[in-house]
Amino acid sequence: MYWQMGYPMAVNLTNKAKNSNAFFVNDFNNSTLQKFVSENNHASKQLTPKALASQSKLIHVREVYLGANGILNGVSKDPKTSKEVAECAKAQGCIMVDAPVSGGTLGAEAGTLTFMVGSETIDYFNLVKPYLQMMGKNIVYCGTNGNGQVAKIANNMLLGISMLGTSEAMNLGVRLGMEPKLLANILNTSSGRCWSSDTYNPCPGVLPNVPAARDYEGGFGVTLMAKDMGLAVQAANESKSTVTLAAVAHQVYNQVGSTEGFQKKDFSSVFKWLNDNAKKF
Amino acid sequence: MYWQMGYPMAVNLTNKAKNSNAFFVNDFNNSTLQKFVSENNHASKQLTPKALASQSKLIHVREVYLGANGILNGVSKDPKTSKEVAECAKAQGCIMVDAPVSGGTLGAEAGTLTFMVGSETIDYFNLVKPYLQMMGKNIVYCGTNGNGQVAKIANNMLLGISMLGTSEAMNLGVRLGMEPKLLANILNTSSGRCWSSDTYNPCPGVLPNVPAARDYEGGFGVTLMAKDMGLAVQAANESKSTVTLAAVAHQVYNQVGSTEGFQKKDFSSVFKWLNDNAKKF
Amino acid sequence: MYWQMGYPMAVNLTNKAKNSNAFFVNDFNNSTLQKFVSENNHASKQLTPKALASQSKLIHVREVYLGANGILNGVSKDPKTSKEVAECAKAQGCIMVDAPVSGGTLGAEAGTLTFMVGSETIDYFNLVKPYLQMMGKNIVYCGTNGNGQVAKIANNMLLGISMLGTSEAMNLGVRLGMEPKLLANILNTSSGRCWSSDTYNPCPGVLPNVPAARDYEGGFGVTLMAKDMGLAVQAANESKSTVTLAAVAHQVYNQVGSTEGFQKKDFSSVFKWLNDNAKKF
Amino acid sequence: MYWQMGYPMAVNLTNKAKNSNAFFVNDFNNSTLQKFVSENNHASKQLTPKALASQSKLIHVREVYLGANGILNGVSKDPKTSKEVAECAKAQGCIMVDAPVSGGTLGAEAGTLTFMVGSETIDYFNLVKPYLQMMGKNIVYCGTNGNGQVAKIANNMLLGISMLGTSEAMNLGVRLGMEPKLLANILNTSSGRCWSSDTYNPCPGVLPNVPAARDYEGGFGVTLMAKDMGLAVQAANESKSTVTLAAVAHQVYNQVGSTEGFQKKDFSSVFKWLNDNAKKF
Repeated sequence: MYWQMGYPMAVNLTNKAKNSNAFFVNDFNNSTLQKFVSENNHASKQLTPKALASQSKLIHVREVYLGANGILNGVSKDPKTSKEVAECAKAQGCIMVDAPVSGGTLGAEAGTLTFMVGSETIDYFNLVKPYLQMMGKNIVYCGTNGNGQVAKIANNMLLGISMLGTSEAMNLGVRLGMEPKLLANILNTSSGRCWSSDTYNPCPGVLPNVPAARDYEGGFGVTLMAKDMGLAVQAANESKSTVTLAAVAHQVYNQVGSTEGFQKKDFSSVFKWLNDNAKKF
Repeated sequence: MYWQMGYPMAVNLTNKAKNSNAFFVNDFNNSTLQKFVSENNHASKQLTPKALASQSKLIHVREVYLGANGILNGVSKDPKTSKEVAECAKAQGCIMVDAPVSGGTLGAEAGTLTFMVGSETIDYFNLVKPYLQMMGKNIVYCGTNGNGQVAKIANNMLLGISMLGTSEAMNLGVRLGMEPKLLANILNTSSGRCWSSDTYNPCPGVLPNVPAARDYEGGFGVTLMAKDMGLAVQAANESKSTVTLAAVAHQVYNQVGSTEGFQKKDFSSVFKWLNDNAKKF
Repeated sequence: MYWQMGYPMAVNLTNKAKNSNAFFVNDFNNSTLQKFVSENNHASKQLTPKALASQSKLIHVREVYLGANGILNGVSKDPKTSKEVAECAKAQGCIMVDAPVSGGTLGAEAGTLTFMVGSETIDYFNLVKPYLQMMGKNIVYCGTNGNGQVAKIANNMLLGISMLGTSEAMNLGVRLGMEPKLLANILNTSSGRCWSSDTYNPCPGVLPNVPAARDYEGGFGVTLMAKDMGLAVQAANESKSTVTLAAVAHQVYNQVGSTEGFQKKDFSSVFKWLNDNAKKF
Repeated sequence: MYWQMGYPMAVNLTNKAKNSNAFFVNDFNNSTLQKFVSENNHASKQLTPKALASQSKLIHVREVYLGANGILNGVSKDPKTSKEVAECAKAQGCIMVDAPVSGGTLGAEAGTLTFMVGSETIDYFNLVKPYLQMMGKNIVYCGTNGNGQVAKIANNMLLGISMLGTSEAMNLGVRLGMEPKLLANILNTSSGRCWSSDTYNPCPGVLPNVPAARDYEGGFGVTLMAKDMGLAVQAANESKSTVTLAAVAHQVYNQVGSTEGFQKKDFSSVFKWLNDNAKKF
C-alpha cells in the first residue's frame, strides 16, 4: 500500500476489525510495515503476497494483485486489466473485486473515503462491504468487474478538468480585481460550484487545511493526476469517446509536472503555475 | 428584459413590492410587455427607457442601460463597459450598480437567483439589496463597479468547463459500461462533484426537471454559453490570464451551437453532441 | 498489404525488379492477390507468411511481421514494437528494418513515396534501399530500429496539426471575405505555407486532383488519421513529451470520424466539418 | 515604424526610389529617425504625421494611420478597422490601401517580404505596387479594403499553429531518439513539411541563421505572436468560425510569453519551453 493513503486506511481497518479476525499485513515499504505492526498488535506481518494469500479468507485484493509489490506489479490499473485479473482469480477458485478509492489523504485519515466496487455479483460486493466500511463512508456498487475502475477514471478525469477550470476562473477573477475568498464564495453558491472550488480550492487564502494553504505540499501529486488523466484519455480512445477537455487538461498537468519546482506538488498547484507566470508580465 | 429570465423575475418583483412603490416596466418585446401589464395591475407600461428613467427612483439598471433595447444597446456586457457606464451615470447625478444573475430560468421562477452586485460603495449595494431579494436568494456584494460582471464571467466560464467536463466523463463512463444514474451518484459523492453533475446533469435519465430530461428544450442556450465563454476569453486576454480549458470549451460550444439541430438547445446538449456522433461509429 | 497503398507499390516493385529476382507475394485480401498475380507474371502467390519467409532472401518485412495478416497481426505499429520485433528477428538469424511510408495513395502510384527506414546498421539499410527505390523517391535512413516508426509518427502528428490548422485558417479567411484560391496562394508564399496548404489543400476549388476536389473521396481516411494521432499522443505520454496541439487535434479527428457522413472521408474533410456547420448559423 | 521591420524596409525603399521623389520619413523613435535621415540623404525628417500627410502624394499609410504614433494610435489592426479607416480616408478625398507584411526581419532586410494588399479597386493597388516592390518580393492583391488584414491574420494564425506543431513533433521525435537534423530533413520531404520546419526550424542545431541558432534572440517576439493569435481568435468569434487549434495555441503562446526568460524571445522559443521543462523530469 502506498504510505499516504494506505497507512491511515490500515489503521482504521485494524482498529474497527479488532474483535473479528486476525489481521495480516504486507507492504513493499518495510519500515512502514514494521511501524504499523508495532503500533497495531492485532496485525501480523507477512513477507510475501503469496504467503498472505494462503492464510487469508479476505484480501484487500487490489493491492495484492496490482499494487507496487503485488502479483501483477507494474500492470496499469485500467478497466480491462481488472476484468482480466478477475478472470484469473476465478479460475483459481477465488473471487476478485476491484475497489479503487476517491477522497484523498484527508478522507483516508477520517475514514470517509468513497470506494467504487466492481464485482461479478452483488453477493461478492456484500461480502467485502463491511470491511470497506471500516475505511470509508460511501461504498458504492458499480456493477461488474472493471466498473470500479471505470468510475474512478471518470471521476478523476472530471476532477482534473474541474481543478484546472477552477484555477483558470479564480486566476481570471482575481486578476480582474476580485478578492479571492469572495470570488470563491460566489462560485460556491452559483452554477460554477464544484469540489475543487468548495472543498479543495487551489487559490491560497480561500480555505485552511488544503494544499493551497501550505504551498501545495502533500495531497495528490500533479504527476499522479497527469497519469490518471493519461489513463482516462487512453480508455476514451479505446471506447471511441471524444474527451477534448480531458486531453488538453492532461497535457497541462504534464507540463506543470515537468516544470521545475512543481514535480512533487499537489495537483492544485496548477493555479500557482498559471498565476506565477502571469504575475511576471 | 429577456422573456425567459425577465418575465418570472418581474413577476416576483411586482408581487413582493405591492405595498411599496408604483412599478413601471418596459421591454423590447411588446407582446410580452402587454401580457405582463394586463396580468399585474401594479405595473404601468412605459415605452422608452428615457421616460422610464424620468419617473423612477430606482431602475433595474442593467437592462435599461445595456439591454437589447436599452440606452447602450449592443454594447457587450463586459467588466470594462460596466465601469464606463457607472462613470457616465455618476456624471449625471445617478448611481449605477451592475447586478448580473446566475441560476437560470428555474432560479428566476423560484426566486432563488444569485445576484452578483458591483457598486461604487457598499451603501449603494444596500440600497438595491431589498429589491434584488424579491427576485433572488443570494445577493452578493462583489466590490466596485464592474466586479459583478467579473464574478458572472468567472462563474459562467467555470460552468461551461464543468458542463463539458461532466459530459465527457458521463459519456466515457456510460460507453465503458456504467449505468448513468449510478455513475452520476458516484461523481456526486466524490471529488468530481459539481453543479453540472448534481443539479443539471446533462445525461438523460439521471435527473428529472432538467433540460436533459426534455431533449434539451428550455434552459440556457448553447449559443448564449458560447457567447459568455467568448467574453471570458476576451477578458482573459486583456488581463494576460491563461485560460486554456476555457478557450477550448469556447470553441466546442461554438461548434455545437452551429450544428444543425443544436442551435436552440440548452448548453447541456453538448452531451448529446458528443454521444450522438459516437454512437454512430 | 493494404489495397490502397500496397497494390500500386507492388506494381511498381515488380515492374522495376523484372530482371532481378523471382517475386513472391501474399496478401490477406485473396481477390486482390489473384488480380495482382494474373496481371504480373513475374509474381508468384504464396499462401502464408511462413512459406513466404522460407523462400525469400528479402522480404518487405513490415507487412509480414506486423501487417493485417502477418506474424504479429494486430500489434500496434509503435516504435517499441519495432525494436522488439527487430530483436526477435535477430535471434532467428534474420535482420529487420522498419520502413513506414509517407506520401499517400498518389505517392504510391507515382512511385514518389518517402520511406523512413530504421535498421540496426546502415549496411542493412543499404541492402534494402534499391528495392525501396523502386517504390519511392526519398529513402531516408532514420537510425536504429524503431526510428522509422518515430519519424513516421512525428511526421503524421505534424501533418494532422497542419491540416486542421490550414482548415481553420482557410475557413476563417473565406468567411471574412477572401477568395479561396487567392488566400491559398498567399499562404503558400508566406510563413503559413505547408504541405496541407500547397499540395493537399482542404478547401474545394483551390487544387485539382486532391480529395477536396471530389467531395473528400479516397486519400487518407479521417479515422486513420485519428488512429495515428492517438499513437503519437501515446508515444508522447510514454516519453514525457507535452503535445497539447496534437492532443486537441486528435480529439477533433475523433469527433469528425464519428460524425455521420464523414467516417469514410479523407482526413482533409475536417475543413468541410468546420464549414458545413458554420454555414448553417 | 517599428525598428526591427521598418528600418530595413525604409532603407530598401529610399535606395530604390532615389531617382523618383523626395522622401519624407517619420518615426515615434526619434533616435532611429535621426540615424536614418543622416544615413540616407534623400530622406527628410518630418515631425508629425499631419505634416507628413500635407506634403506627400503617397504615404506608407498603414503606419501613419494605425502605427504606434499614428493618427489612430492604439487602434487594433483588425479587418474591421481597416474598412473603417478606408471610409474615413475616402471621405477626405484620399485613398487607403491596407498592406500588412509577412516575412519577418530577414525578409525586410533582403527585400523579400510578402505584402498583402487590400484596396477598394485594383487601380489603387497598381498605384502603390511599384513602391511596395522596392521592399518586397510578393505583392499580392487580396481584394477589397480589409482583406490585406484578413490574409495577414489567417497566415499568422496558421504560422502560430505550425510552429507549435513543429515544436511538438521535433520535441517528441528527439526525445524518442532521433537526431534533430535528420528528423527535420524527413519532415521537410514529407507531408509534415511547413515553413516552420524547413525555413525557421525551432530546434537548435537544425538550421543556421534562425533564432533557434542564437538562443531565440531577435525574430518575431512570442508576445507579438500571442497578440496576433488573439486577433485571429477574436475575428473568428465575430465571424462564427471554429478555430480550436488556434485558440489552444493562443493560450500556449500566452503562457510562454509570461514565463520568466521567454518574454523577449522569438516565438519559436516555444520549442525550448516544451523541452526545457521536459528535460527536468
